[in-house]
Order: sequence, then C-alpha cells, then structure tokens
Amino acid sequence: MTKGILAVFTGNGKGKTTSALGIAFRALGHGHKVCVIQFIKGNWTSGEQLFAKNISPLIEFHIMGKGFTWKSENLAEDTALAQKGWQLAVETIEKNEHHLVILDELTYLIRYNMVSEDEVLRVLSRRPAGMHVVVTGRHASEKLIDLADLVTEMVEIKHPFANGTAAQKGFEF
Amino acid sequence: MTKGILAVFTGNGKGKTTSALGIAFRALGHGHKVCVIQFIKGNWTSGEQLFAKNISPLIEFHIMGKGFTWKSENLAEDTALAQKGWQLAVETIEKNEHHLVILDELTYLIRYNMVSEDEVLRVLSRRPAGMHVVVTGRHASEKLIDLADLVTEMVEIKHPFANGTAAQKGFEF
Repeated sequence: MTKGILAVFTGNGKGKTTSALGIAFRALGHGHKVCVIQFIKGNWTSGEQLFAKNISPLIEFHIMGKGFTWKSENLAEDTALAQKGWQLAVETIEKNEHHLVILDELTYLIRYNMVSEDEVLRVLSRRPAGMHVVVTGRHASEKLIDLADLVTEMVEIKHPFANGTAAQKGFEF
Repeated sequence: MTKGILAVFTGNGKGKTTSALGIAFRALGHGHKVCVIQFIKGNWTSGEQLFAKNISPLIEFHIMGKGFTWKSENLAEDTALAQKGWQLAVETIEKNEHHLVILDELTYLIRYNMVSEDEVLRVLSRRPAGMHVVVTGRHASEKLIDLADLVTEMVEIKHPFANGTAAQKGFEF
C-alpha cells in the first residue's frame, strides 16, 4: 500500500477547517473511515457533528480542547487537555483503523509548546501506510511543512467580520 | 433577512473546491438547501455526488462544463456550455429556492471571456437576501474580490504531485 498524504492547511485565512471537512465528506463518499480530533473547541457545532454521525457511521469526532487561547487563565489545565488530545491522536494513528485522520488546529499545540514538535513529527512520519492525515491551524512550523506532502496557505484577503457582517448560521467557518 | 455572504476562494493552491464542499456539508447539517453548479467537470466524482444526494435530498449538483481548458479544440462548444451553465446559475439565484449556491470554477468563465464580468457582478450583487454564494477558481478578478464579503487566497506551498505522489482515492481535491 502506498503512503498516504500528509496535508497541512495553514495561514490566517478562512477555509482551513472547512477544507478538512470537505475532504472528510469525500472520504465518507468512498466508504472510508474518518476520525476527527479537534484541539480547539468550537469550529464545528454539535449539530454538524450530529449530522455527520447521522449520515455515516464511518465518522467519529473528538473535541479535546476547551477553546484555549493566549488569554487563557488556566494554562496548566489547557496544556493537560491538549496533551490528552495529542495522546488520543497518537493512539488513533497507531491503531490504524481509519483511512483519514483530521487533526484540527494541531499547530497551536506545537506553537504554544504544549506538545513536543519532535514527537509530533515522529508520529506523523510513522503513520501507517495508506493513512491520510490532515493538520490544520495557523503558523504551521517549518519542520511540519517540510514533512508534509501537500501544504496550502490560506491567506486572508477579506474577512466578513471586518466589514461588519455578523457570523451567519450555516456559513460559519 | 440580512444579506447572505458572498465568498470567493481563489489562488493556485488546493482547498478551494473542498472548502466549498465543507461549507455545503455544514449547510446541510443546518437543514439548508444547497445547489452546486460546476463549470469545469471533474472536481467531484459521480460517487461523491451520489453520496451527497443519498445523505440529503437538500443538495443538488449540476455539471455544466466538459472540462474546457486553454488546450480545448472546440472553443465555440465550450463557450456555449459555459454560457448555458451561467444561465442556470442566474435562474437558480433568481428563483431563490436555495440557502447556499456554489459556483465552482466560475472565475474561469470570466477570465476566458465566456461570460460578461459585468453581468456576473450584477447577478451576484442582486442575490436574494439570506442567500450565501460561494465562487471558486483561480485568478478571481479584482472587481469580483471587491464585491465579495469574504475572500481567501489558497496559496500553494507544496503540491503532492510535485514530489511524485499520485492522486489518491478519497483524497483528490
């Protein structure tokens, strides 16, 4: 079996998580098993997750973050949650039961030193043959980009909130 | 009802159509009606379309292009097909039966002068209240970007075919 693709969607623009979601949608269409691990809460609503689970038993979601940011008041708790999420990612990759593993916002864990970059690179590079992995998040590190097969930088040209448009149901990113 | 979002995904990187697909997925999760018009054949396989239709009666697909490129041998036929596709887009927007209309690869029709840019801008700017429209494709024109609420440029940092990896089932973009 050929090596799967490691894709990274980075940059400050909208479309990183939605691209990952589109890939998940396609994979389900091919009858592939998909695991989504979200390291920052809130990108996908519970309604969307419910819908995804309803349409296919092949997709599973894990929300491992509480929405930590640089403003967080409890860094120790955030770090512990991030590390727990990363452990789940490691186990999921090693178990090799999915065709596609989406690690949504993983880049933040590296950037804020919540997990070791070397370990992330090692686990991703040793992923089982045929397993595709998608990593999303701003500020993907140089080494992660080096390791990846496909990298797109989503560059924000215009953001709807910048001109006063509120987030709209069915169109959040 | 507030004005819906006009989003444009442009640039040379992967993730434009998949982002649109992710947005469609989300919209379906909210019970919204989605119409996808593809102006270039081949981005989404019939298997994926079948899957989408199976999971929800709320999504419809129209493939209006034959995969025209600058190498096309029959420009008149390609142009006629493109114009037919654009007419369907105009009717779909004016009928106002969908929450989300995806015009996949529409930018090429403007770039290759198959449809009038002024007309595209006029139709998009007069879309019904509450209707979201997503336009994808390389080389979005300056006027289209000016009109849009949200614009992301997908910039190719790395492409898997560049290092010899073949397109893989369940991971095509």
